Amino acid sequence: MISDKMRKNVENGSQIRAMFREGKEMAEKVGAENVYDFTLGNPYTPTPAAFADAIRTLLDTEDTTTLHGYTDNEGFPDVRQAIADNLNKRFGSHYTAHNILMTVGAACALNCILKTLLNPGEQVLFIRPYFTEYRNYVGNFDAEYVEAACDKDFMPDLADFEAKITPKTKVVLINTPNNPSGVVYTPQVLKGMGEILEKKEKEYGTDIYLVSDEPYRELVYDGITNPFVPDYYKNTIICYSFSKSLSLPGERIGYLAIPDEAADSDMMIQAASVAIRILGFVNAPSLIQKAVAKCLDEKTDVAYYDRNRKFLYSHLKDLGFECVMPQGAFYLLMKTPMEEADFVGLAKKFHILLVGTTSFGAPGYVRIAYCTSYEKIAASMPAFEALAKECKLG
Amino acid sequence: MISDKMRKNVENGSQIRAMFREGKEMAEKVGAENVYDFTLGNPYTPTPAAFADAIRTLLDTEDTTTLHGYTDNEGFPDVRQAIADNLNKRFGSHYTAHNILMTVGAACALNCILKTLLNPGEQVLFIRPYFTEYRNYVGNFDAEYVEAACDKDFMPDLADFEAKITPKTKVVLINTPNNPSGVVYTPQVLKGMGEILEKKEKEYGTDIYLVSDEPYRELVYDGITNPFVPDYYKNTIICYSFSKSLSLPGERIGYLAIPDEAADSDMMIQAASVAIRILGFVNAPSLIQKAVAKCLDEKTDVAYYDRNRKFLYSHLKDLGFECVMPQGAFYLLMKTPMEEADFVGLAKKFHILLVGTTSFGAPGYVRIAYCTSYEKIAASMPAFEALAKECKLG
Repeated sequence: MISDKMRKNVENGSQIRAMFREGKEMAEKVGAENVYDFTLGNPYTPTPAAFADAIRTLLDTEDTTTLHGYTDNEGFPDVRQAIADNLNKRFGSHYTAHNILMTVGAACALNCILKTLLNPGEQVLFIRPYFTEYRNYVGNFDAEYVEAACDKDFMPDLADFEAKITPKTKVVLINTPNNPSGVVYTPQVLKGMGEILEKKEKEYGTDIYLVSDEPYRELVYDGITNPFVPDYYKNTIICYSFSKSLSLPGERIGYLAIPDEAADSDMMIQAASVAIRILGFVNAPSLIQKAVAKCLDEKTDVAYYDRNRKFLYSHLKDLGFECVMPQGAFYLLMKTPMEEADFVGLAKKFHILLVGTTSFGAPGYVRIAYCTSYEKIAASMPAFEALAKECKLG
Repeated sequence: MISDKMRKNVENGSQIRAMFREGKEMAEKVGAENVYDFTLGNPYTPTPAAFADAIRTLLDTEDTTTLHGYTDNEGFPDVRQAIADNLNKRFGSHYTAHNILMTVGAACALNCILKTLLNPGEQVLFIRPYFTEYRNYVGNFDAEYVEAACDKDFMPDLADFEAKITPKTKVVLINTPNNPSGVVYTPQVLKGMGEILEKKEKEYGTDIYLVSDEPYRELVYDGITNPFVPDYYKNTIICYSFSKSLSLPGERIGYLAIPDEAADSDMMIQAASVAIRILGFVNAPSLIQKAVAKCLDEKTDVAYYDRNRKFLYSHLKDLGFECVMPQGAFYLLMKTPMEEADFVGLAKKFHILLVGTTSFGAPGYVRIAYCTSYEKIAASMPAFEALAKECKLG
């Protein structure tokens, strides 16, 4: 007999993962070329060749006992320093190796910092829409989540943000560029959030940590600059992943950046290191740590996603669908012209797999992950056209 | 402010990890050649060359989108099937890919199966001595641990084992070959345990799962055969790691094997897959999954550890220390001729770093990890001799 909590988790499942499996099954039946699976944020652009080169060099030159051995729970010191240097060069920050903890992807980083900070019953504030897994991560530590509203452009509604902060708010968890909306928070919004958080800290006499989940940091379009979140609030902790920036989601590699300026910083760094160990991560994969450290200036092909984005947005609009133009990440929100679940079901009839946004805290849309091939997106247009017709659009 | 639980965890720390750091600091002061660090189970024997070859081949032949992409939460199907086939060939089991879930090392496997099974307040039975981290893993899910005694040879005391099983016992967690004792449970002991568990399941009308943590499965000496635990009890779940068998501890790769025979097997497999996701592991590192699948018949140099074992045991005995001859793993227990903490402190004066066994639930010994170089062990003998003299032994 499995536990009661897990029984519920199995029953509810992950809509995204379930669709991913459904897509595979559908592909077996009707042929992969006839299935248009837009469910999973699995990058399509190739990993930069420098990554394989780095691994080959490491295998040729490093002793296996070090290369594949346990590292400190917080990672190899030289890797941590290389990341600190790279951030400082790009953002004018002043991290050292001490501030950087290597993690098994951003999901590990998030769980470790939540484990570090949360007492049962404390609150984590999300801003709609938000990545569905956050709810599970908060649940792992018996804390509560609270949702703040976004405005019509999916930017945080600062008045509601302020209203939702209570004396129990320990963490504010943001994600910009945002999954699923593709919105990039502006400097004005981040400045406003920082000011509200400082005010509330004083009002309640508490520490509130802004945890910034940044797997999409490098994926922005239209020449915009993605603001560096720690510039706007001192208690900011970054959870980073190389999954999207280097197309490495399967390798589970990322980091936590905890600045000296944050309240209780040293204790937090120590505790996060303990959390990496006792949650069972132990250390980020060692070979992969060393390899990404050699690829910090590498970039994935953002222009490829940009072409997908523009094609998809303009063609779906032409078909009569209402879409939100994303400025970052690789997701596009499309308003559902009927009940969300009905629309998701209807799309399946045309072999189009989409994820409804109810589970992201913002019902009435579907998320289209356009991190797939341009050819696949182009090929899906007749199916979308048929879907639009069925919905009496256009 | 970090959480209250983590504040305690930081204060208590990991004795092993603290000693590991202390060893590094000592090495900086007096030179690495003068420090005898026997604290950490970091394998010394090189990773088999086949592993690097496998990675090179994968990098040369596989598409990066698959090789470094998200896998199913439970891993690549072909990797899972390869492991099932390998187990079946070696142990006459009948696993399929369905029964094998790839994990981020055994620590992930243990956390995921505990998350899957445990309701708060349920009990996990350990047998002394046991790996210190188990307490943290059980604590992650607000369950309780209960300790059963071992006999004078560090083999489970079956009478106490039976006495400690209650209606709240959900999991029995064993580790053979054992860390820290090096004991390998005999078929008789496993048979006895299986019979007791079946009896208790009937008596209480409960399911009790035997979770077998097997990172040292391949490390046995003196030509003995390590029994295959699932042969003795149907509700057996294996948590395996390639850390020691292929000298890959830093790469975090292992698996869960959940057999069809186990009670509620299908639900457990589904739930464990969900646990891999929601605990933040997401999937085992993808490149490393593929690489170990190509190395399932590879072996580390067990003869090397065997030589260390024999040398250390005979020399320490000659110096007057009382030791337990290990039959597996790469740890040796040595009785402390004074209070354990005092002895650990005294050994440090001779630059010998040892871990006391109080934290393993069996006070009065030190654990000597002999997964280090033969030359280092030989070089440490004058320091051990001086330590013996200081203890008035010999």
